[in-house]
Amino acid sequence: MNYGKIIHIIGVLLQVEGGLMLLPVLVALIYGEDCWWAILSVAAGAAVIGTILRQIKMKKAKFHAKEGFVITALSWVVLSTVGCLPFVISGEIPNFVDALFETASGFTTTGASILTDIEAMSHGLLFWRSFTHWIGGMGVLVFILIVLPSNADDMYLMKAESPGPSVEKMLPKVRQTAMVLYGIYLALTVLNIILLLAFGMPLFDSLCLSFGDAGTGGFGVKNDSIASYSPACQIIITIFMFLFGVNFKVYFLILFKKVKDVVKCEEVKWYVIIYAAAVVLVLIGILKDVGDFGTALRESAFQVSSVMTTTGYSTTDFNLWGSMPKFVMVFVMFVGACAGSTGGGMKVSRWVLWFKQLKNELSHFIHPRSVKKIRLEDKPVEQETLHQTNVYLMAYVLVFAVSMFIISFDGFDLESTFTAVTATQNNIGPGLGVVGPMGGYSGFSVLSKLVLIFDMIAGRLELFPMLILFAPSTWKK
Amino acid sequence: MNYGKIIHIIGVLLQVEGGLMLLPVLVALIYGEDCWWAILSVAAGAAVIGTILRQIKMKKAKFHAKEGFVITALSWVVLSTVGCLPFVISGEIPNFVDALFETASGFTTTGASILTDIEAMSHGLLFWRSFTHWIGGMGVLVFILIVLPSNADDMYLMKAESPGPSVEKMLPKVRQTAMVLYGIYLALTVLNIILLLAFGMPLFDSLCLSFGDAGTGGFGVKNDSIASYSPACQIIITIFMFLFGVNFKVYFLILFKKVKDVVKCEEVKWYVIIYAAAVVLVLIGILKDVGDFGTALRESAFQVSSVMTTTGYSTTDFNLWGSMPKFVMVFVMFVGACAGSTGGGMKVSRWVLWFKQLKNELSHFIHPRSVKKIRLEDKPVEQETLHQTNVYLMAYVLVFAVSMFIISFDGFDLESTFTAVTATQNNIGPGLGVVGPMGGYSGFSVLSKLVLIFDMIAGRLELFPMLILFAPSTWKK
Repeated sequence: MNYGKIIHIIGVLLQVEGGLMLLPVLVALIYGEDCWWAILSVAAGAAVIGTILRQIKMKKAKFHAKEGFVITALSWVVLSTVGCLPFVISGEIPNFVDALFETASGFTTTGASILTDIEAMSHGLLFWRSFTHWIGGMGVLVFILIVLPSNADDMYLMKAESPGPSVEKMLPKVRQTAMVLYGIYLALTVLNIILLLAFGMPLFDSLCLSFGDAGTGGFGVKNDSIASYSPACQIIITIFMFLFGVNFKVYFLILFKKVKDVVKCEEVKWYVIIYAAAVVLVLIGILKDVGDFGTALRESAFQVSSVMTTTGYSTTDFNLWGSMPKFVMVFVMFVGACAGSTGGGMKVSRWVLWFKQLKNELSHFIHPRSVKKIRLEDKPVEQETLHQTNVYLMAYVLVFAVSMFIISFDGFDLESTFTAVTATQNNIGPGLGVVGPMGGYSGFSVLSKLVLIFDMIAGRLELFPMLILFAPSTWKK
Repeated sequence: MNYGKIIHIIGVLLQVEGGLMLLPVLVALIYGEDCWWAILSVAAGAAVIGTILRQIKMKKAKFHAKEGFVITALSWVVLSTVGCLPFVISGEIPNFVDALFETASGFTTTGASILTDIEAMSHGLLFWRSFTHWIGGMGVLVFILIVLPSNADDMYLMKAESPGPSVEKMLPKVRQTAMVLYGIYLALTVLNIILLLAFGMPLFDSLCLSFGDAGTGGFGVKNDSIASYSPACQIIITIFMFLFGVNFKVYFLILFKKVKDVVKCEEVKWYVIIYAAAVVLVLIGILKDVGDFGTALRESAFQVSSVMTTTGYSTTDFNLWGSMPKFVMVFVMFVGACAGSTGGGMKVSRWVLWFKQLKNELSHFIHPRSVKKIRLEDKPVEQETLHQTNVYLMAYVLVFAVSMFIISFDGFDLESTFTAVTATQNNIGPGLGVVGPMGGYSGFSVLSKLVLIFDMIAGRLELFPMLILFAPSTWKK
């Protein structure tokens, strides 16, 4: 294990996090709120410790995939732990585990909350809470890759942090790719803010909600999430949630004027098809109760966009819907967004790969002599990628089952227990039952909260980095 | 497609089914019940049509895996369709879809019932209902293999009907293997009957319940399933359900005096471990409510045995248990029994293979240069078997999701909808909520019942035969 490199990167991470905290300090000062000193003191502490850690000399030893996973997993744990301290110190979330839950939920862009009264929070900390979505959405190590001098091993970090079964370097250098990705991310976020402002949303809300859209997070600034905003703002949020769930390769291609190649994006095609089908089904399911076609379509388009992209905003309490639309919601919870987007879940491309393997196997039974290679986006898929995608499913089921088992001790009904794990492991936020859009996670035990924190980080990093962190043989010489 | 062979085997199947129906005719006559003529007329009709079909000349064309799957799937559909006619003609289950549901549930050893008052049924048809469990448990085509002259292609039939990721010929010839398997099956069933009789259970009940044990079916003859029998009888049933969930290879080895090899059976080891762990957890979960340790242990051992082996008998309404023991029940529903047993579900050996692949992948991340081959029962597992096991998981998820979607239109709560599919696709019988041990399937729509019938047969045949039956390219020239 290359401990030097690990400590060095954690050092950079702390400096970056400290720096990013200056933004909420500014917000708190503008609103004249006391919490500024709590945030500033954590920021200063992080910066000082980060600077000390960076003094430790890096060994020039080889850097493997294992180290990439370990650094990524540790970074996210450190990020959440340090990020939660302003909540604790300011006394706005005095309980450490609750604050850690809220912050991990923020960075992993889950949006699951233990708060019962969001509007009682200070603007400064609400801003920090939403800002963690924006930081976590694109990935904080991807950001560090821009800061650090280029290195041949960087691909390992990017691989470990980026969502989806395979990672493409879109430009020859990892650093360039990271820069362009962050550029697109920033531009889309700014566009989102401007449009919300144009349709009459206050600046503070526009900023926070755009961070939630961009990271597909889901923390709002009002107790009823998005329900009390104007229909126009709801439609803008619907569109941007959807856009941030698209594989960023699409924007990359548009930017580099290869619009023709966009149509070849098989994953995006299926993303659109599944989204449209789910909207229609939910619309059918809720039309009778809602009464008005326009309202039903807006609610359906909003909720499917919110849940499928794993954002988690709500304009209505879908926990009160009928069985069929509720099942469709649970279904898209498991589908998730595109790989290479800021969304979570299992990802559309994995489902496409599983479906293709199944089709292939059936046709192999029917025509035993035919051997077909599985292709995605017009390229053959490597056997190794397929195998990892399949093993991911097993890891997914395992983490899910163990989590559900531990949480079931809390005694909530099966629906709540099942969707609590679904909503955290897929980084969505709200589930059904007690964790429905109008409920929350405050009722769970400390142990359950720790398990759900693990699920959120494991889900965001697509399981393997967190599992490796807990495998004893990782730490053996 | 070798239509000649398909029609020929369906012919034999009808003759066999007609012959087996003479047993319930006898029971009806003994009890002086009117239903004897309904059963007898169907038996005679089946025998006549079967004899006619057998006259069709078989082409000597090659026989492929595809044909093995198609014959198996069609056989089970025909078996259930013909088997349900006595219920319809006698008027005891006048609705055809309900009767088909009940019979498919019987042959697939599911034990899910649409009946609301079991005790109102005639003895003759109750006997037939339980007897279908016994016929379906070991597999009806395996039985036909004993009847038919030996054939080199028989392995395809056995592969398609036998549960588990891989099938071993234990003796050089398929026919011999089938005979020994049926011998063990019969001997264990007789032992079960004798023990129940010895502890005071009436003959009729002993026969029917032993058929349910043997096939891991779950149809009882009383409205409260097994609750009103003596503790001694409940313990005997607990033990035999467990024994019929063991891979029959174990009995094979004992029979051929290779007891030393029994300890090498990795799957059975995990089966015992998971069973014991589940019993302890459920015991902890229900002890406070039950009060008495002995009763709690008996209930826990019984229910876990019943659900894990996918039998589905009940001595208590586990729908009323707390979240944790309920979750453990749902968990063992998905684990299932051993491959090569009469039990259903995903099978312990598949879980072992998935777990080993996951462990292998993680250790590959940690030590990239190490390549380990996955071994089961001390033998290396073929890549093809692993791939099929993984694709099975995808097929499982797909069938499950589509079924749940269609059934959700019926408007039952998520728990009921989810466990209705769980309990049919895994051939268990009772689930939770409206399909709990004291509930039933009568409230579902016709469409939902047809979907659940499909799930039961697909589950029994481990998905691929039924999926191939519905693939258009199977029927193309």
